[in-house]
Amino acid sequence: MDQSDLPQNHWQLSERARKLTSSAIREILKVTERPEVISFAGGLPAPVTFPAERMREASDRILRDNPAAALQYSATEGYLPLREWVAKRHSVNGATIRPSQVLITTGSQQALDLLGKVLIDPASPVLVETPTYLGALQSFSMYEPRYVQVPTDEQGLIPAGLTPALTAGARLLYAQPNFQNPTGRRLPIERRRALAEFAKKSAFPVIEDDPYGALDYAGDPLPTILSMAPDHVVHLGSFSKVLAPGLRVGYIVAPEELHFKLVQAKQATDLHTPSFTQRIVHEVVKDGFLDTHVPTIRALYRDQCEAMLAALARCMPEGVTWNRPEGGMFIWVALPAGIDSMKLLEAAVAQNVAFVPGAPFFANEGQGNTLRLSFVTVPPAKIDEGVARLAALIRERI
Amino acid sequence: MDQSDLPQNHWQLSERARKLTSSAIREILKVTERPEVISFAGGLPAPVTFPAERMREASDRILRDNPAAALQYSATEGYLPLREWVAKRHSVNGATIRPSQVLITTGSQQALDLLGKVLIDPASPVLVETPTYLGALQSFSMYEPRYVQVPTDEQGLIPAGLTPALTAGARLLYAQPNFQNPTGRRLPIERRRALAEFAKKSAFPVIEDDPYGALDYAGDPLPTILSMAPDHVVHLGSFSKVLAPGLRVGYIVAPEELHFKLVQAKQATDLHTPSFTQRIVHEVVKDGFLDTHVPTIRALYRDQCEAMLAALARCMPEGVTWNRPEGGMFIWVALPAGIDSMKLLEAAVAQNVAFVPGAPFFANEGQGNTLRLSFVTVPPAKIDEGVARLAALIRERI
Repeated sequence: MDQSDLPQNHWQLSERARKLTSSAIREILKVTERPEVISFAGGLPAPVTFPAERMREASDRILRDNPAAALQYSATEGYLPLREWVAKRHSVNGATIRPSQVLITTGSQQALDLLGKVLIDPASPVLVETPTYLGALQSFSMYEPRYVQVPTDEQGLIPAGLTPALTAGARLLYAQPNFQNPTGRRLPIERRRALAEFAKKSAFPVIEDDPYGALDYAGDPLPTILSMAPDHVVHLGSFSKVLAPGLRVGYIVAPEELHFKLVQAKQATDLHTPSFTQRIVHEVVKDGFLDTHVPTIRALYRDQCEAMLAALARCMPEGVTWNRPEGGMFIWVALPAGIDSMKLLEAAVAQNVAFVPGAPFFANEGQGNTLRLSFVTVPPAKIDEGVARLAALIRERI
Repeated sequence: MDQSDLPQNHWQLSERARKLTSSAIREILKVTERPEVISFAGGLPAPVTFPAERMREASDRILRDNPAAALQYSATEGYLPLREWVAKRHSVNGATIRPSQVLITTGSQQALDLLGKVLIDPASPVLVETPTYLGALQSFSMYEPRYVQVPTDEQGLIPAGLTPALTAGARLLYAQPNFQNPTGRRLPIERRRALAEFAKKSAFPVIEDDPYGALDYAGDPLPTILSMAPDHVVHLGSFSKVLAPGLRVGYIVAPEELHFKLVQAKQATDLHTPSFTQRIVHEVVKDGFLDTHVPTIRALYRDQCEAMLAALARCMPEGVTWNRPEGGMFIWVALPAGIDSMKLLEAAVAQNVAFVPGAPFFANEGQGNTLRLSFVTVPPAKIDEGVARLAALIRERI
C-alpha cells in the first residue's frame, strides 16, 4: 500500500517524533535479508553460538517447577537471583557491587532509553565518542540533547580531551571501552584509570556500555571502569552477545541513588522485563556455563576476524586502511578521502554485498569515507567473496 | 542500607526524573507480599488461569524446531504471524485491520510509553478519564503533559463532555472502555459510537486501551471503538489477562502513519520485544485456544466478583457504595465523604488487609474517599474475611 493511499489524520506529533526521519540506510539494508546478499552490515551474533538445547532444558524446568512465578507480574528491579549473579560477576579487582545496584533491562537498548529519561533534558549537553554507537544516539535523541563529541584516536576516547570547557553542563559521558561499535577499538588500561578518576570527581556519570567485553580473543579482559570506581560509574551489560539477543536481557549497574530513579522510570516504561526470559538466563548461567561457553564464541569470532583481515589485506587497494580488533564483532574501514561510503553502499548492494556506512555513527560532523564491517554473521568463504567484491568497487572509485 | 550511607554523586537529573517521588502507597503495599495479608490491592491475574503446560509445550517446540530465529534479533514491528493473528482478531463488525497497523509491544505498558514519546511535548494537553488508569499517568508523565480530566459518570466517559473548550490543543484522549481500571465501568454502545464519530473528526487520536475486554462475564462483548473507526482510533491490546502477564506481550493497532513513528520510537526503546516470548504467544493462540480458555477465566473471575459483591452487601455499613462490574478485575468503592482511604489503608494494613486508595487514579483533583478492590487474586473464603475486616475499620470511622 502506498503511503498516499492512507487516511491522513493530521495528528500533531511530539517535537521528538517529528525529528524522526526514515533512515536511508535502513531502507537500503532491507534488501540484505535476501539470501544471496553477503551482509557485513548487521551486528547479528552467529546463531551457532546460541545454546539452544540448554535454553530448552531451562525453559522446560522453569515452566514445570515454578510456572506461577515465571508467568506472573514481577518486581521492576528484576529477578533477584539474576541481580545477585550480576553483582557477584562484577565484584572483581577489589570492587564490591551490591545487588541493590543492579536493574535488569529489556536488552541493553532499554538501558540507554532509561538513562536518557532520567538524565537528559532538551538541549542539555551529552558527551559521546567520535564516532559512537548509533543505537545510543537513537535512544538519547528521544530526549533531545545537544551532542558534544569527545576527541578519540585509534585507541579510543582521549581522557585528556575531557576539558572543563568541553564538559561544562554535561549530563553524561557515554563510552564503549571494549571493542567499540562501530570501530572495534579497545580503551587501554591507563585511559580506563584516567576515566575512573574523572568519574570520581565528575558532576555527571560516566556510562560504560560493555556488550562486547567478554569477546576478547586472547581471553584476557582489561578491568572495567566500573571496577575502578564502583560508586561513580554506570555500567551496562548484556546477555545478547554471550547467550542470545532474542531474549532481550541486559542490565544496568548504577549507584543506588540513580538506580532508584531508573527503577521508577522502568516501571513507567514496561513494568518489568519478562519474568520468564530472566529466569531462563539465570538458569543457564548460574552454574558457570559462560566460563566454558564464551571461549567457544571468542574462538569463532577470532577466526572470522582473521579471515576478514586476511581478505582485506589481500584485496583492498592502497589508500584503504582498517584496524586490527583484539575482540568484538567489527572492523572499521577508512576509504581514501572523497569516496562517499553511502554512495558505495548503493553500488555494493547492487552487487549483493552490504555494510554500514560510517557517517551515522558520528553525533555531529562525521567522516563520510568510513564504514563498519561485521565479520560474525558470515562464514569465512563468504567473507572472502564479499570483501573481494567490495574491493573491486572501491578500486573503481579511486 | 540507609540512603544517607550512599555516596552522593550529586548528578543532575532530568526535569522529569526530579518530579518522580517515592510513592507512599507503594511503600505501604510492600508489606502485602507477606503471606498473612489478604490483598485486594494488586491487579495480579489468578495463576491458576496461566496455561503453563501449553506454554511449556510451545517453548519446547519453538526451541527444538527453530531456535535460531527465536533467539536472534528480530524485526522491531514484531513477529509477523502474531501481527497477522492480531489483525485478523480485530477484523470484526465489518472493520478491516491490516497487519501493517500492528506493532507488538513489551506489554501494554510499553504501548503507553511509546504513545507518550510520539505524541506528547512538555505542557501539551492530554485528555484522561476521571479517574483513569494509574499506569497510564505514570507513562505519560515522563513526557510532562498537562492533564485535562474528561467528565465521567457511573457508565464511564461522557462524550458530550468533549467540548471544543475542553479538548483544544489536546494530543490524545486516553480511555479504557471495558471494565476500566480502577472503576470496573464499561462504556455503553451509544457512547462508543459517539467516541468513534468524535475520533473521525478529531485533530488528535482516541486511544482505546483494552486489557480487560475479553473478561466480560456474560461472554457478550461490546464492539470496540476501533471496529467503528479503524483508521482513526489507536487500540491497545494485551495477552497479560488472557494468557500470562510475565511474558510481557501486548500490541498497538494504529493507522500506518502513526504506526511508522511508533516503530521508530520502539527501535530506540528496546529494539524489539523478545522473539521467543512473541513466538510462544503465537504458538499458544494460533489454533483458537483462547476461545476455550478465556471462558474459564471469565467464570472464575465472575464467581470471585460475586463473592466480593455478596461480602460487601453483607458487611459494609450504610453510606458505603460500590458498583456491580459486568467484567474485569475491579470494584470501585466510595466511602462516606470525609473518610480518607489513604489513612484507612494504613489501618487496614495493620489488620493484614490491603487495597489501593482511589486518589492516585485522578490526574488532577481526586476523591480521597474512594478505593479500588481487586477480587481476582484472593479466593472466596479469604474475600469474605478481608471484606469483613475492612468493613469493621470503616464502621469505626463513620
